[in-house]
Amino acid sequence: MQRVAKKAKIDPLHAAAQEEVVTEYTSSLPFDKELYFWDIVGSLAHVDSLKKAKVLTAGECDKIRKGLVSVLDGINKGKVVLRPELEDIHMNVEALLGDRIGKLAGKLHTGRSRNDQITLDLKLYSRERILETMEELYELQEVLLSIAKKNLRTVMPGMTHFLPAQPVTLAHHMMAHWFKLHRDFDRLSCCYKRMNCCPLGAGAIAGNTYDIDRFATAAAMGFRGPTSNSMDSVSDRDYAAETMFCLSMIQVHLSSIAEEIALWNNPQFGYIKLSPTLTTSSSMMPQKRNPDVAELARAKVGRAVGDMLSMIVVMKGLPLSYNRDLQEDKEAIFDAFDTAVDSLWAIRALLCCMEFDAKRMRAACSAGNILATDLADYLVKKGMPFRTAYLTVKGMVNESIEEGEPFEEWELSCFKEYSNLFGKDVLEYIKPESAVERRKLHGGPAVSAEKASIAIAEKYSKQQLEVMSSIEKDVEGTITRLVGAKAGSRPR
Amino acid sequence: MQRVAKKAKIDPLHAAAQEEVVTEYTSSLPFDKELYFWDIVGSLAHVDSLKKAKVLTAGECDKIRKGLVSVLDGINKGKVVLRPELEDIHMNVEALLGDRIGKLAGKLHTGRSRNDQITLDLKLYSRERILETMEELYELQEVLLSIAKKNLRTVMPGMTHFLPAQPVTLAHHMMAHWFKLHRDFDRLSCCYKRMNCCPLGAGAIAGNTYDIDRFATAAAMGFRGPTSNSMDSVSDRDYAAETMFCLSMIQVHLSSIAEEIALWNNPQFGYIKLSPTLTTSSSMMPQKRNPDVAELARAKVGRAVGDMLSMIVVMKGLPLSYNRDLQEDKEAIFDAFDTAVDSLWAIRALLCCMEFDAKRMRAACSAGNILATDLADYLVKKGMPFRTAYLTVKGMVNESIEEGEPFEEWELSCFKEYSNLFGKDVLEYIKPESAVERRKLHGGPAVSAEKASIAIAEKYSKQQLEVMSSIEKDVEGTITRLVGAKAGSRPR
Amino acid sequence: MQRVAKKAKIDPLHAAAQEEVVTEYTSSLPFDKELYFWDIVGSLAHVDSLKKAKVLTAGECDKIRKGLVSVLDGINKGKVVLRPELEDIHMNVEALLGDRIGKLAGKLHTGRSRNDQITLDLKLYSRERILETMEELYELQEVLLSIAKKNLRTVMPGMTHFLPAQPVTLAHHMMAHWFKLHRDFDRLSCCYKRMNCCPLGAGAIAGNTYDIDRFATAAAMGFRGPTSNSMDSVSDRDYAAETMFCLSMIQVHLSSIAEEIALWNNPQFGYIKLSPTLTTSSSMMPQKRNPDVAELARAKVGRAVGDMLSMIVVMKGLPLSYNRDLQEDKEAIFDAFDTAVDSLWAIRALLCCMEFDAKRMRAACSAGNILATDLADYLVKKGMPFRTAYLTVKGMVNESIEEGEPFEEWELSCFKEYSNLFGKDVLEYIKPESAVERRKLHGGPAVSAEKASIAIAEKYSKQQLEVMSSIEKDVEGTITRLVGAKAGSRPR
Amino acid sequence: MQRVAKKAKIDPLHAAAQEEVVTEYTSSLPFDKELYFWDIVGSLAHVDSLKKAKVLTAGECDKIRKGLVSVLDGINKGKVVLRPELEDIHMNVEALLGDRIGKLAGKLHTGRSRNDQITLDLKLYSRERILETMEELYELQEVLLSIAKKNLRTVMPGMTHFLPAQPVTLAHHMMAHWFKLHRDFDRLSCCYKRMNCCPLGAGAIAGNTYDIDRFATAAAMGFRGPTSNSMDSVSDRDYAAETMFCLSMIQVHLSSIAEEIALWNNPQFGYIKLSPTLTTSSSMMPQKRNPDVAELARAKVGRAVGDMLSMIVVMKGLPLSYNRDLQEDKEAIFDAFDTAVDSLWAIRALLCCMEFDAKRMRAACSAGNILATDLADYLVKKGMPFRTAYLTVKGMVNESIEEGEPFEEWELSCFKEYSNLFGKDVLEYIKPESAVERRKLHGGPAVSAEKASIAIAEKYSKQQLEVMSSIEKDVEGTITRLVGAKAGSRPR
Repeated sequence: MQRVAKKAKIDPLHAAAQEEVVTEYTSSLPFDKELYFWDIVGSLAHVDSLKKAKVLTAGECDKIRKGLVSVLDGINKGKVVLRPELEDIHMNVEALLGDRIGKLAGKLHTGRSRNDQITLDLKLYSRERILETMEELYELQEVLLSIAKKNLRTVMPGMTHFLPAQPVTLAHHMMAHWFKLHRDFDRLSCCYKRMNCCPLGAGAIAGNTYDIDRFATAAAMGFRGPTSNSMDSVSDRDYAAETMFCLSMIQVHLSSIAEEIALWNNPQFGYIKLSPTLTTSSSMMPQKRNPDVAELARAKVGRAVGDMLSMIVVMKGLPLSYNRDLQEDKEAIFDAFDTAVDSLWAIRALLCCMEFDAKRMRAACSAGNILATDLADYLVKKGMPFRTAYLTVKGMVNESIEEGEPFEEWELSCFKEYSNLFGKDVLEYIKPESAVERRKLHGGPAVSAEKASIAIAEKYSKQQLEVMSSIEKDVEGTITRLVGAKAGSRPR
Repeated sequence: MQRVAKKAKIDPLHAAAQEEVVTEYTSSLPFDKELYFWDIVGSLAHVDSLKKAKVLTAGECDKIRKGLVSVLDGINKGKVVLRPELEDIHMNVEALLGDRIGKLAGKLHTGRSRNDQITLDLKLYSRERILETMEELYELQEVLLSIAKKNLRTVMPGMTHFLPAQPVTLAHHMMAHWFKLHRDFDRLSCCYKRMNCCPLGAGAIAGNTYDIDRFATAAAMGFRGPTSNSMDSVSDRDYAAETMFCLSMIQVHLSSIAEEIALWNNPQFGYIKLSPTLTTSSSMMPQKRNPDVAELARAKVGRAVGDMLSMIVVMKGLPLSYNRDLQEDKEAIFDAFDTAVDSLWAIRALLCCMEFDAKRMRAACSAGNILATDLADYLVKKGMPFRTAYLTVKGMVNESIEEGEPFEEWELSCFKEYSNLFGKDVLEYIKPESAVERRKLHGGPAVSAEKASIAIAEKYSKQQLEVMSSIEKDVEGTITRLVGAKAGSRPR
Repeated sequence: MQRVAKKAKIDPLHAAAQEEVVTEYTSSLPFDKELYFWDIVGSLAHVDSLKKAKVLTAGECDKIRKGLVSVLDGINKGKVVLRPELEDIHMNVEALLGDRIGKLAGKLHTGRSRNDQITLDLKLYSRERILETMEELYELQEVLLSIAKKNLRTVMPGMTHFLPAQPVTLAHHMMAHWFKLHRDFDRLSCCYKRMNCCPLGAGAIAGNTYDIDRFATAAAMGFRGPTSNSMDSVSDRDYAAETMFCLSMIQVHLSSIAEEIALWNNPQFGYIKLSPTLTTSSSMMPQKRNPDVAELARAKVGRAVGDMLSMIVVMKGLPLSYNRDLQEDKEAIFDAFDTAVDSLWAIRALLCCMEFDAKRMRAACSAGNILATDLADYLVKKGMPFRTAYLTVKGMVNESIEEGEPFEEWELSCFKEYSNLFGKDVLEYIKPESAVERRKLHGGPAVSAEKASIAIAEKYSKQQLEVMSSIEKDVEGTITRLVGAKAGSRPR
Repeated sequence: MQRVAKKAKIDPLHAAAQEEVVTEYTSSLPFDKELYFWDIVGSLAHVDSLKKAKVLTAGECDKIRKGLVSVLDGINKGKVVLRPELEDIHMNVEALLGDRIGKLAGKLHTGRSRNDQITLDLKLYSRERILETMEELYELQEVLLSIAKKNLRTVMPGMTHFLPAQPVTLAHHMMAHWFKLHRDFDRLSCCYKRMNCCPLGAGAIAGNTYDIDRFATAAAMGFRGPTSNSMDSVSDRDYAAETMFCLSMIQVHLSSIAEEIALWNNPQFGYIKLSPTLTTSSSMMPQKRNPDVAELARAKVGRAVGDMLSMIVVMKGLPLSYNRDLQEDKEAIFDAFDTAVDSLWAIRALLCCMEFDAKRMRAACSAGNILATDLADYLVKKGMPFRTAYLTVKGMVNESIEEGEPFEEWELSCFKEYSNLFGKDVLEYIKPESAVERRKLHGGPAVSAEKASIAIAEKYSKQQLEVMSSIEKDVEGTITRLVGAKAGSRPR
């Protein structure tokens, strides 16, 4: 609906108008309702702690627990209505609990503040979404790996400066992206470890006065332990900024892949054919099959970076400890996760369903004299100093361009005009396939070297699986311990 | 609802999965539906142009117009369902038109592409929201002006480096913010003028082949004329980036006001008392009346800046002309407008309902030796070179701090110990009120100077009203001409 | 030199170490010395004001003026040594003045603070560099215009979504960039007008107590008037942020041009040949002529945007009025100006010396079925509804791709298989040249339309010249009035 | 010197002008000379590899090594002149080598490209500066720890929402910052591990054709191994972006400390007294001792974030593999390191030399009813549900404010008017000291809890020392192995 708030006409001296401001401007319910599941999980952990600390009797604890599970069930099934005027998800859950168990609901919040509660919720939420992002990363890496394995000998021009530089293979190109994404995975994994400590118990700023065992509470929620300073706990949003940095780097790497897809999809390159289902048409130009998915994936770096920066700007210059400014963390991080997960999936779908045109890639190797470096190396190996060889070949390149004859078509005599060091073997030497095969040092494109790199990648893959499985244990274990076995039934 | 897209498990080789990707990842309907009103207005203009160009008969034109108005009415009243699988608002409107007038609907899109259509829609939308932002700016400026007029003689410590520096008045302080906001208004006004030219007719990239009078079309929609290059027209998002820059500067200025409100609300300062209705309470600490509205207004710089940067990152390195990347413009600019309008209103409400504690402000003037500069000036006026006077007063300041006696409480003899140039008049001289009164040069805090500044501000205010009225004419005139008199009835 | 500050080992409890911190961390001399010329110009204006206000006698004023001019001359000729321990350029100039005229130098700073002085300096500096940037913009626009005029009939594929879309001309493509740069010029011009008011007299925060005519001072320096609020004056850095936004947009536009140069330089496109002098070679690959200048121009968006962001982050949440944070304005804006001026020149040089390969552009028009839209239009003009025509042509496109036969090579009968509406004229109709000629509506690529656009551009060019001449009058007039006729001799 | 490049007047059609463009615009020498030391170290490692691969004879290798060490020595001692027209530091070193050993110098570059060389240099450089940053972090943490240990019982008001919230201790406050900085350290440490693999051997894009043992080369330079994909190696700048993110977070945390210093330095708070040597004076106001160091430290977040953003913008949308755009990495990361190291030292100096005014902190605890939460807890412990207690205390707070009597001054009967649950013990209960002592749960401010936190911090400190020692081994070991024992003599 067209939004034209005629607030300019509203008199702020009326209390009702003021209340509207506070409700509209400060209410976080429209977005923090996303956290309801983890908010209730956190409350279940808290209520257990209160029981152990003898703040609640076993009976009270049990009643509150049942109430909370009923609230959870109600929201899961869409049977309850959340009320914006209650400001946030915490107050809504407490109100819903009150509806079910009456005055006792008031005891749930003992020894807790929304300041420690919200950062707990956001950490629990982020843990799960980091796992989800990792799963998407892993799947995309698997696709790259599978293309690589099938194309160990598919030669193509490797580009530097947007120009054909030296022949590589499609496998090599795909694995370059693989290793970038592996760093993204590793980065997220470090970020997870750093953030996975439990702020509950930090209260508003100074902890609370109850005899609560924060180590036990942390363990119940799969954290490696409690945080060690209450003021730091409620003001810390490092993990949000860092997560969004990790997600930004993922988007940066996807933007490179996306740029290449758009480029290769251009008929001047024609290296690939996109699945028609994954392109979109023009409303005006009937011939177009546009790579919109790739274009959007390229663009969405902006979004992730914007999200991250908004968080950092928020944090700048804030004194300790909790300030309401921090509420601005949520929409940014939700959006950044959504963007990363969707983009990873979208690029994966594109790559999965893409046809590569090996012939056009091979043909493009003839253009641009991309064997020139090899010619120089040939001469160096026969004893010429590198800089001399370099200059000799430069002359040959000029002739090749002027005559329009790629080296592949030169006769031996032509070579000899430039240096007597050239022997018959140069004719085989300057084929892209042999050029690639000569680059067998570690990390190079030769088949043997590529296989070695792939073996390393597969070892890393296994480690990634272990990391994911360990995080899954933290996340799912928390649900099992606190909500019970049927937790899996929540809507996804 | 808890979002855990288990996309990792979906096989992208199934066409259905691919379609889901394209629909979910590329569909802009979830946000561009915000543009429906202006999209239909633009179509009404287009259909008139097609008639004039004899592409449509008068009868066809009339039928399409009626259809479009009926679609508009349907959406206004919430009677139609928009379909996400139709990708965007343009296709939805065309489909709804088809439901009403059949095959003829197909002719509406003649000579137009979504590439020129979407930038037209976004410009029409932005024009109206720029006007709305201006209205909010104006209202906030009015509140500042009104506080200033009531407090021409309310002295308070002016701060530099977070330290009391020299006495000023509350009026002077408020007017400093006024002039900042006036620049914001002026900046938006320039931005509006620059963007207000009509891209319709640019087609997908190269215009169209019909005999369309783009000048007439532009005039019908209140533009100052048509754009002059079709490739520029469809690729231009300068106006979006510039608008978001303007909105970012507004947020920066609001963040300063907000910071001061938070500071002055602290009991150590105690300069103000916020309306209880406009503060929020702590869930744990019963004594707190937190300035959350101010804190959020301070934080939301992050949001505006993040929005702007995301747009610039999107634009970086794109070749001509339209690329799907540009679709990322909308959510950012919608969010930036919402944020600015809401923040302006929120800060206005805070200021409107704030009580100032003139006594505490006056008392704070005694702290920090803020009359020291005046003492130096006193000596300079009696003939001492500035640097010497400066050093003399520095010694006096040290004594004042050590003895804990502000200058206001010194006797004449104490002054004379430092320099014989001090006469009896110094006792009056060092009162903050007289210090303020001495600063009567243009732009200074003395009452006469302040009145002169306020007179200038009021002249600017009138100019602002004229700008708003002229933009309103563009915006409302477009509606009247194309939709008819009843347009005002659309939901706001 | 390798920098490894072993500060970690220094004991901060030693006063000498503390002094080193303050000197190194807070001294702005290493960068603000860039402002020496305008700092002295501002002092010359100030000293005149003090004379008129009778704070200085004519004799004193004259002596200080001569001293200042001598300092200026000394720095111009590299004959004086600036001293970092004096913190900034202002203190250095004052010390140098003292060396020349003794104690009287102390009177120069009467009624002034570094707070108003530094923002005056930065405004004077920015005015000149805005002019310089405008000159560079203008020259680049002239080059684009000149290429356009020579290539009104050079057809090439216009791209959308990185794919050939419709035929345009090289003229049309170049003019698209022209209009973007024109907006950049206009934006800078508005920014200039908004900032061109004089802060001198605002003092540290509250003006001063002398009878200074700020209107006269402003006029002497070519400002449109004095600022109207002293607290705003010393805290305002809007102009710095806005200037950097304007410069960022220039970089964004240059990045598009640069991206296209890199793309067109690729042998798969081969639309252009860069001047060898303007490319760089590879240290390893003898065949490479890399478009490094374009690549760097593309990259430098990052720099400009980073500079702007740093300024906005600095301003966020600062209370009034001057805070030392604002010192961070200078390096950012200096760098942003340098980057823009250099990049504009670099891209201009590239374009000037570029050869266009019209044949390859024309040949590329056959690829990608870029006449498809025209075929649809053809049918619409013969009476078919647009959507039907669109679908018909889609079928033809499919056949063309499958058979590998562009429409240009089809016979009439082939067309007729799809619709009887096709007549013999279709054969001429689908040539790119006639397609371009049909797009003669305003802003289209047809020769007549292009000429009309160029006429508009030339009208704008003249206005740009007028703007530059008016700014030059402000800038040069200030120098003439305050330094005298020989000012032009300062080193550039 | 005033910079007004009159490039606008230069005709780019002259080859000399073109050369000037390329030299000025693309030369990296002005900044990459910073890398000379590590560039030569990398060459020493490369030359050893070439010997092992039998590309060089032992004699050649020896001659080149000696030449390189002589070049290093020459630059160290400032005895050689670097030549800008040679484009970058690599070419300069090679030219200087040629001066010393003649034509043989040409063989040094065999099997290497500037593409792998520059990223090697930047990694070697970054490793050392990460270590330096860690050292500064560690030292600052030590200062915080030392203040904390001395102030376990110094009570002060803990703030939320810029308002006094609950009493904490100075120790607790300082330790909150400690734990933030510890995360910064940990983050840098992860970043170091991830980046510490060796790109040398990746060549321009596809490795080289020599039989080089990249594992040995990597080991010689203290890397954990070689990179595994040559295309990734030359295009990877993840480590630069990630380092700058880490440095940005450091600045964010310093900005919080700086904000608090500025706040506490204000006479309304008066919690601290800064060392006069570390403050700066006003040129106009003799009484000012401005906290400029803190203000600048707060502002410099802008710089670090701007640097990081510029890197990410550069990387956005780049296809594989090396593009000249990446040259923009260096100035940004150099600046970010300088800023972090200097800011850490500056804040450390401030904290070291600061006097805390325990009396004013204690006095401030009476203001703002910060014991209200405790009163509520008191009632809860006596059996009242939390929400009821909360409301009861809210009434008491209102009375306290109206009467101007802090709870500390209430008599028992006053308490009893609100609830009979109040006993005599409440009078002791509401002292800030006892409030703090009640918060003994893990992470709370009670002395016992603080000691436990400090013990954890000290354990982490030891781990930090181990990390630094291990990195020092990588860095210094590289120098010892390749340059020899006298390496320590290079200028720092």
